[in-house]
Amino acid sequence: MNYVILHMGEGKERYYKEAFDEYSKRMNSFGSLTSVPLKPWKTPGRELSDDEIRLALEKEAEIFEEKLSNPKFAKSYKIALCIEGKTLSSEAFSDLFNRVAGSGKNTVVFLIGSSWGLHERIKGMCDLRLSFSPMTFPHSLFKVMLAEQIYRAAGILAGNQYHK
Amino acid sequence: MNYVILHMGEGKERYYKEAFDEYSKRMNSFGSLTSVPLKPWKTPGRELSDDEIRLALEKEAEIFEEKLSNPKFAKSYKIALCIEGKTLSSEAFSDLFNRVAGSGKNTVVFLIGSSWGLHERIKGMCDLRLSFSPMTFPHSLFKVMLAEQIYRAAGILAGNQYHK
Repeated sequence: MNYVILHMGEGKERYYKEAFDEYSKRMNSFGSLTSVPLKPWKTPGRELSDDEIRLALEKEAEIFEEKLSNPKFAKSYKIALCIEGKTLSSEAFSDLFNRVAGSGKNTVVFLIGSSWGLHERIKGMCDLRLSFSPMTFPHSLFKVMLAEQIYRAAGILAGNQYHK
Repeated sequence: MNYVILHMGEGKERYYKEAFDEYSKRMNSFGSLTSVPLKPWKTPGRELSDDEIRLALEKEAEIFEEKLSNPKFAKSYKIALCIEGKTLSSEAFSDLFNRVAGSGKNTVVFLIGSSWGLHERIKGMCDLRLSFSPMTFPHSLFKVMLAEQIYRAAGILAGNQYHK
């Protein structure tokens, strides 16, 4: 199974990049894990009005739609990461991938929005809305948490001992 | 406010250590954030029986109790991290620290057990059982998530913009 994380913006912290790369490397035994940074809509460097936030979300939605129109995502299972989403245990997260594989899909795509979140239309295009925690984490740390859970889930499916 | 994380065992990943140190350094503006690794009870390097797990948990409980008997924790608010604990938003986590400060306590202690979790007696000594997520994370990554949320909470209380 291929796991692809589409995310708005890119963190700068080297330690988070190294942590992500480590899980991505380990995932080569199980398929692939890649991270695709998308360029966020440029907003003024000040507090935005509600209209400006709506515009930024709309523009970001168009960027996601354009990316998802790529034929390589034609047989993908799409997961929107959002704070109001469903929470799952690590085991249930792993079961989900098992079911996705059984349904003939070859790619799981995770969508992470900017600090404004994801446009409702993008959430509506996804197969699942998922939340890891009611807490808010920075983008770059969250990407590491997601990569670790994907690696853990792949390990549970393969019956290895990492998750113990 | 001083924040102390007592945890069984020590992760090896350099990138997680660097991430933790970064939040610890930033916390110097708000008080202090320190991490105290405790040496876990030595168990055989194989699958343990239920009796052996009970023994390890008991021995680890004694290690926590000995540490908590230090007078510097006399006026502390104690939080047990456990998967069945209460979940909080980042804002509610911050409000909690505000209430703890208002009650005259000067230290918040977080207790993270080994892979067997925490002994029920230790959880019972704590003021709160807290869970970040129904998912299981490795010790060293979880410590970074906790440090980030403590820094975020301190920032929310101080009215800065980091959490936006």
